[in-house]
Amino acid sequence: MKLASAVRGGDRAAVAKAISLAEDDPDSAGALMRALRPPRRAFVIGVTGPPGTGKSTLVGRLIDGYRRNGLKVGVVAVDPSSPITGGALLGDRIRMKAYSSDEGVFIRSMASRGWSGGLSRAASDALQILDSAGFEVTILETAGIGQADIEVVGIAHAVLVVLMPGMGDDVQASKAGLMEVGDVYVVNKSDLGGAGQMVSSLFAMLRGSKGRSPAVLTVSALKGEGIDRLMQATEAIRSRLDDGSEELKLRSIRGMVVEAAKAEAMRRVETSSTSKADALAKLVLEGKISVAEAAARLVQ
Amino acid sequence: MKLASAVRGGDRAAVAKAISLAEDDPDSAGALMRALRPPRRAFVIGVTGPPGTGKSTLVGRLIDGYRRNGLKVGVVAVDPSSPITGGALLGDRIRMKAYSSDEGVFIRSMASRGWSGGLSRAASDALQILDSAGFEVTILETAGIGQADIEVVGIAHAVLVVLMPGMGDDVQASKAGLMEVGDVYVVNKSDLGGAGQMVSSLFAMLRGSKGRSPAVLTVSALKGEGIDRLMQATEAIRSRLDDGSEELKLRSIRGMVVEAAKAEAMRRVETSSTSKADALAKLVLEGKISVAEAAARLVQ
Repeated sequence: MKLASAVRGGDRAAVAKAISLAEDDPDSAGALMRALRPPRRAFVIGVTGPPGTGKSTLVGRLIDGYRRNGLKVGVVAVDPSSPITGGALLGDRIRMKAYSSDEGVFIRSMASRGWSGGLSRAASDALQILDSAGFEVTILETAGIGQADIEVVGIAHAVLVVLMPGMGDDVQASKAGLMEVGDVYVVNKSDLGGAGQMVSSLFAMLRGSKGRSPAVLTVSALKGEGIDRLMQATEAIRSRLDDGSEELKLRSIRGMVVEAAKAEAMRRVETSSTSKADALAKLVLEGKISVAEAAARLVQ
Repeated sequence: MKLASAVRGGDRAAVAKAISLAEDDPDSAGALMRALRPPRRAFVIGVTGPPGTGKSTLVGRLIDGYRRNGLKVGVVAVDPSSPITGGALLGDRIRMKAYSSDEGVFIRSMASRGWSGGLSRAASDALQILDSAGFEVTILETAGIGQADIEVVGIAHAVLVVLMPGMGDDVQASKAGLMEVGDVYVVNKSDLGGAGQMVSSLFAMLRGSKGRSPAVLTVSALKGEGIDRLMQATEAIRSRLDDGSEELKLRSIRGMVVEAAKAEAMRRVETSSTSKADALAKLVLEGKISVAEAAARLVQ
């Protein structure tokens, strides 16, 4: 397959085209993804956290850090833009500009348009495309406005949860699972004050999580403070991957398989026979079964 | 079941408790929903559209309109708030205040926390709970920031898509399906100017949709202009429901069944055996199958 070869050769236009295919045409993308097998071994970093915590600035610091280490970096940023404003593309252009003369950086935004399954597959495909094109570090940045955003970073080898001072009570009250997914908790905007208290809150909350000991760091992405320690924390995880950690290698792929399976399962329900759905809806209307019972039968 | 009886009796505290159950404890909610069978026949209005188009103000006008017609109105508003800011609850309190002395109005917000399946089920349950409690008109308001938001209004008998002047090109470029779901297209903020042009754009875009002839209206929800025609448009649909339209009755229930089935399908993938996912991930790592192929096998 010509496109696959061009992607493997690191051709930037081909990479862009392949990612568009993954977004817009899942069927053709399927053939491409088969042609791109097997995966290389890019290190996948997931970055999530609530809006306004400075994730994009932090990602910029990670890009700079890995470029200094001589590694090529690909970024997939999922923007929570309105489906009809196209804001993601604008953000894309602004962010790309900073790296326009650096062939070792590739940034691509995807407008989230709701995580109705399709995006997680497209994002996962995009990461694999960047992997195939020789980007040694790939970063998936999600907006952290919902559970799906947070779950999808499960396809990463290392998950950074970005927070800021003053969010302690909110994180505690959250049901969104931020405290379950992180390998590194980054308290950004440390210059604001209150960062120490936020770190204490995080340690208190993490005490309950068994078998996990995520790192907790304070940084100021804007001022470039604390970035060295952040790089050390992610590099410690990457070195395990390079040492051939089977568990870590499987973690990212398993996450991708599960996300793709969720999308596939939803697609199957959406395309299931309308006559079956109608018959079940009739039973609900007559009070014979509940909506949940009808749903369970429709899934079968 | 005691809670079910209290809900059926219209007890507001019981309704609030039942909706919390639907949000927080799907398993117990399942038993409640079975006890609430069969559905009554509330008219379900779905309201969606991009952020900033004035959906909440418009919903306020609909509440007032239906209250003047002597009908009880229940609202479920899905807020796109950050999972960790609790903004939805604040909005709830402000909105409830306006109707605090009116027993015929019930408003409940749900923080979206991502549409990872769970919310569409919870929202659908909440609408059925309001139905059981005797609310004759129920409104589901979603934020319209993604495809999932837009799809979920498919559980309504009548879908209002709220837009504003100047959005023509954006709607045209949108892949989110706004042009496919509406029964009534409402150009809000008509006082801004450009409303006529927006209406023309909408008619041009709708010309291509076969077998559908949605209404297109201009209103100013803020100033209360055009609300009578909006009420006429929704009442025209409600009268078909009251006339016993089987197709319309099934439409909402079928939508609920499909949404619930999607949630159930995703839940099954999430709880599927990790050993199977691991085995498939290994095959992907070895390059034997693609992620998509592994996903398809995992769904089976």
